[in-house]
Amino acid sequence: MIAQMAQAQKSQKSNKPVKTAVTPTRADNFPEWYQAVIKAADMAENAPVRGCMTIKPYGFALWDNVKNALDDMIKRKGVQNAYFPLLIPLSFLAKEADHVDGFAKECAVVTHHRLEKDENGKLVPAPSSELTEPLVVRPTSETIIGESVKNWIQSYRDLPMKLNQWCNVFRWEMRTRMFLRTSEFLWQEGHNVFETEAEAAKDAQLMLDCYADLLENWMAIPVIKGRKTVDERFPGAIDTLTVEAMMQDGKALQSGTSHHLGQTFSKSSDIKFQTRDGDIEHAWTTSWGLSTRSIGGLIMVHGDDDGIKMPPKIAPQQIVILPFLKGDNDADVLAYCQKLTDDLTAKNIRVLLDDRDMRTGDKSWEWIKKGVPLRVEIGGREMDGGELSVTRRDLGKSSKQTLEVGAFVEQAQIMLDDIQSNMFNMANKEMNDRIFDMDNMNDARAFFENEKQGFVRIDAAFWDTPEFNAICSDFAVTPRCIPLDDAKKMIIGKSY
Amino acid sequence: MIAQMAQAQKSQKSNKPVKTAVTPTRADNFPEWYQAVIKAADMAENAPVRGCMTIKPYGFALWDNVKNALDDMIKRKGVQNAYFPLLIPLSFLAKEADHVDGFAKECAVVTHHRLEKDENGKLVPAPSSELTEPLVVRPTSETIIGESVKNWIQSYRDLPMKLNQWCNVFRWEMRTRMFLRTSEFLWQEGHNVFETEAEAAKDAQLMLDCYADLLENWMAIPVIKGRKTVDERFPGAIDTLTVEAMMQDGKALQSGTSHHLGQTFSKSSDIKFQTRDGDIEHAWTTSWGLSTRSIGGLIMVHGDDDGIKMPPKIAPQQIVILPFLKGDNDADVLAYCQKLTDDLTAKNIRVLLDDRDMRTGDKSWEWIKKGVPLRVEIGGREMDGGELSVTRRDLGKSSKQTLEVGAFVEQAQIMLDDIQSNMFNMANKEMNDRIFDMDNMNDARAFFENEKQGFVRIDAAFWDTPEFNAICSDFAVTPRCIPLDDAKKMIIGKSY
Repeated sequence: MIAQMAQAQKSQKSNKPVKTAVTPTRADNFPEWYQAVIKAADMAENAPVRGCMTIKPYGFALWDNVKNALDDMIKRKGVQNAYFPLLIPLSFLAKEADHVDGFAKECAVVTHHRLEKDENGKLVPAPSSELTEPLVVRPTSETIIGESVKNWIQSYRDLPMKLNQWCNVFRWEMRTRMFLRTSEFLWQEGHNVFETEAEAAKDAQLMLDCYADLLENWMAIPVIKGRKTVDERFPGAIDTLTVEAMMQDGKALQSGTSHHLGQTFSKSSDIKFQTRDGDIEHAWTTSWGLSTRSIGGLIMVHGDDDGIKMPPKIAPQQIVILPFLKGDNDADVLAYCQKLTDDLTAKNIRVLLDDRDMRTGDKSWEWIKKGVPLRVEIGGREMDGGELSVTRRDLGKSSKQTLEVGAFVEQAQIMLDDIQSNMFNMANKEMNDRIFDMDNMNDARAFFENEKQGFVRIDAAFWDTPEFNAICSDFAVTPRCIPLDDAKKMIIGKSY
Repeated sequence: MIAQMAQAQKSQKSNKPVKTAVTPTRADNFPEWYQAVIKAADMAENAPVRGCMTIKPYGFALWDNVKNALDDMIKRKGVQNAYFPLLIPLSFLAKEADHVDGFAKECAVVTHHRLEKDENGKLVPAPSSELTEPLVVRPTSETIIGESVKNWIQSYRDLPMKLNQWCNVFRWEMRTRMFLRTSEFLWQEGHNVFETEAEAAKDAQLMLDCYADLLENWMAIPVIKGRKTVDERFPGAIDTLTVEAMMQDGKALQSGTSHHLGQTFSKSSDIKFQTRDGDIEHAWTTSWGLSTRSIGGLIMVHGDDDGIKMPPKIAPQQIVILPFLKGDNDADVLAYCQKLTDDLTAKNIRVLLDDRDMRTGDKSWEWIKKGVPLRVEIGGREMDGGELSVTRRDLGKSSKQTLEVGAFVEQAQIMLDDIQSNMFNMANKEMNDRIFDMDNMNDARAFFENEKQGFVRIDAAFWDTPEFNAICSDFAVTPRCIPLDDAKKMIIGKSY
């Protein structure tokens, strides 16, 4: 598909290569293109702290919109936000064996609580402040939340209890990539507690549905809902559900996971309750998380060689208005643009009038790279005609059209909605066109051996066969999921 | 004032002591009353991690509303949100001598990045994972933000730059008190950069004005805006502005600070820019922070012996509707209550219909303790008359009145607004009645010696005199601020 896009671009003007805003292009080098898009849109940068990133205002505004959409969604499912401590005593983590095995290798460990100057005047952790029990910067919070929640639950009347926190977590990473894999990242982690196993199982799916809703209907990212194979489960879970998205290079991105934890953590944290029959039982819990990683997915699903494309529903700015100022009637043009800005704002559209003292062409390229869904250009001629010209980011320059200003104000939301659905439909076709059904492992091997892009859908019975394991180790392929809508199949592919 | 309140309560029914929802009362033991209010409202609890707290859903919903109000306010001042790393290399912190002196004693230090089992099978920080440079959990972010921002600024055209992050910070505390002083707390920290000293000085005041606006107009907490004396400044600042509130026990709570940092941090972080004249100069910076501490202030300004009182503008629930269910016409009563809930929701009022299967009296006490501004009670009699009975939390049980339901829907917002202003006015009178002007140090000494409650306003020239210093050390009094509206005076008092 990347190759197709490169072809399409070149054929637009047959005799010269098309200039792109981002270098390299996707076809030339997808991983470098990814980093370049983030830089071009001024969304984030590598932090001066190893393994960490700084989220810049434009990237953070996008995350804030994603966060608000999901926060609203989960609250309507009865989830309440709370906040639990950042630092977790080692002994809490150690209570659940699988869990600690899963996270021990990547924990940032706090061992001292004071700094002092040593004999050479160098600032060092004060030896006298060494902690008797080290603290771990949370990689996830099942254990610390369990320690609190066990005291909040006495009987079935206290259940279900659905808690969530928006926070930072830390998992030491050696090889990092902005948004996709950084030592510190931002996420929400939900932790729900139930009376019965059936309720917990149902809840894990309900929260997964929220993620699918967020990704598909807000971020315009189509996903496959599925179940992880046993070796890919969250450490301590009895079932891990996932939403898998396909990037433009055909690799998968696990974009959100929802875990049925059974009684694993209720037993290690001793979360008990009095049942309706008067017995005392351990509760059933779930946990579910979605992180800033999803922003990386958005870039790799929707970006093109001119930069990111923002789905309108979560775009920091939905429309940017660019006045052409030539010195003669600037005040009038600006007033005309301001009126338009006010009219669109009154319709709850996020609109920015970019009146900076810069060349309009440069501004236009900046907003293309930042992926604003609609760019409006207005000069003296448009003003005199009561008009404006508007270009859709998803369709590119050829979509430029002149509209009467009042008609645009009326249609703007419809245009934004159309961009939203067009972006989803394009990406959905793209994904479905690259899911290949196969009935034997030889074909699957040939697919990955020839570096074809996409997912292979194959009988789940092949899982853990020698042929399957060989493909996995030879081509860095993993089982992405058992689709919820077809439990006999398995989706396999490369992944981020 | 606490004594007066206790007296007032007893005299309501002269021959028996009034039952209060919270024990002990303010008059009996103010610090214990404070903890009891938090517990009674189910807002927070001490975490199972030393020095840390868990913010429970009701407390977090309050903080979320405070956060949203302030976030909106600062965005209108041109501030953009971003996110910077949690962990700061020791060398960054060490760059500014005053700053490191101010924070070194309370830093949580990360020294390892992996856990492993030792020879006895005990989980320990892996010796081989010791970091060559320790990392500090941010106590504040001037240094790490400076390291990034210096690369974002080339010329005066990039200024002003106004950044903010909502995050957690960590300052090791030995003696903790929920919301007021915990090792980890939530806050916002703003970091602004300017071309000139004058702009930075003006900005520090502008952001202080936002805090005063938030505290007074949203949290109904009157404040004194002032300047800290030199010994009370933020480590590294050339000027620290503060908003000081008075608690019901007469002690001060520093509720937000805004610092003019001069060129201290631009020099240590090397934040330079090309001026309008083509020179290269260091920029001028400010930083400003407000934390979950403000929630502690709200409790201690507005709480009474029945619990917290929520100012309507930030109350998690503004109105609670309590149906009296007696078994005969429950479905009708509930439908009547649901209609009222919908009508109030349509007016953008945060309303909760509490239809739990519990005694109405118990529910009512629960919401009194949680401080919901208006409690509506509806039984069969009210329904038949098209009426309801409503009680204001700020005025207590004597304010209970019966209203026609449509009239209530129309008036509800006006009633909430009246509660908001009444709460502010009461607290403002309370504060001003207890600021005592004195013209000599003997009177000031007598005031604190006799354990009088409140602030003393006195000539600023007394600062650092032997008499003044003696009072400070004898009675744990501190200079709270030099009021912005009267630079010749100084406010002194005890504080949290």
